[in-house]
Amino acid sequence: MKLYTYFRSSAAYRVRIALNLKGLDYEAVPVHLLKDGGEQLSASYRKINPSALVPALQDERGTLTQSMAILEYLEETHPDVPLMPPDPLGRARVRELCQIVACDIHPLNNLRVLRYLVHTFGISEEAKTEWYRHWVSDGLAALEAHLARDPGAADFCHGETPTLADCFLVPQVFNAQRFNIDLAPYPNVARINANCTQLPAFAHAHPSQQPDAE
Amino acid sequence: MKLYTYFRSSAAYRVRIALNLKGLDYEAVPVHLLKDGGEQLSASYRKINPSALVPALQDERGTLTQSMAILEYLEETHPDVPLMPPDPLGRARVRELCQIVACDIHPLNNLRVLRYLVHTFGISEEAKTEWYRHWVSDGLAALEAHLARDPGAADFCHGETPTLADCFLVPQVFNAQRFNIDLAPYPNVARINANCTQLPAFAHAHPSQQPDAE
Repeated sequence: MKLYTYFRSSAAYRVRIALNLKGLDYEAVPVHLLKDGGEQLSASYRKINPSALVPALQDERGTLTQSMAILEYLEETHPDVPLMPPDPLGRARVRELCQIVACDIHPLNNLRVLRYLVHTFGISEEAKTEWYRHWVSDGLAALEAHLARDPGAADFCHGETPTLADCFLVPQVFNAQRFNIDLAPYPNVARINANCTQLPAFAHAHPSQQPDAE
Repeated sequence: MKLYTYFRSSAAYRVRIALNLKGLDYEAVPVHLLKDGGEQLSASYRKINPSALVPALQDERGTLTQSMAILEYLEETHPDVPLMPPDPLGRARVRELCQIVACDIHPLNNLRVLRYLVHTFGISEEAKTEWYRHWVSDGLAALEAHLARDPGAADFCHGETPTLADCFLVPQVFNAQRFNIDLAPYPNVARINANCTQLPAFAHAHPSQQPDAE
């Protein structure tokens, strides 16, 4: 398998964690999001992903994009290390947590969005940081409230082993920490993140451990 | 089943379509996103969905949020009218199309985001419309490119019957049309939307057909 990735991309980080948890070998193909105006915008990369975003995963069946779709696909095609609970309600909970990160937090703080705010609206660096922190704090509060009310949350987002939800949580917490967001108001998030980051599968997926890390 | 919904919510619209396609009865509980500063922000609604967003679905098992998680759950618990293809690559394609709408288009044009742009950045009505149209156009172009390159796209996003991807496409096209976005550059999107909207399940889920429509 080939993973088109960028070391600091939160969505690529999710897929790297899942691949590691499942013990799947892959070739990392770096796509530099900042160099030459963004390699993801090139005609050659758009042939791989017309959305001009990372990650993309290629295997013998085809090319897949969108981290959630890729993770569900890996779960279906490599079920040996399950990253989803066996019951429909449990799976719904896991997907709910994934989507809180994927839909309600991350899209607002994506590179292309921050660029629009700066280049088109002309907002200051300070206002940009405030925007970033606002959506992360808001989203982590939602994640915390969902985790706090659910008896399924334990050492990990759902139960005693990692699921897809943890693959989403950890990269989002990494982003929050880059922006100095205090995790104290989110004790469930902080505990689960600490449990995850001790595992080699998560540690090896960390941005700093990637071949294209700067 | 109870669906917490708002007639114009794109995410609630997706769930209404899936419920109709599967022939499932439900009670619509309107949550008015604009009245009294937003009913979704009330303490009572936050008990149902701590994220303070619609939709939420309640059945005998529990309360679910996030449209993608709800749709996958309905597919697992009511498989009689399948809205997912049988093969992993097909399912990955369907999920990819869903997530292009759910992650790359819709979050940027959500009510809470538009409010932030106006109230905090003080952008004009014109700049807000330009932002809205930018992300819809960009996202529809991506959707179109994905559909155009895939032999699986036919009368519907994937094959000859509706899937979850069509439940996402139609509400997004409805939003685009509200902002007078011309669909001519997106012929696959336009064709599939036209095929879907002829079906009663889609027609009955339309915002104008809801009990809380204004």
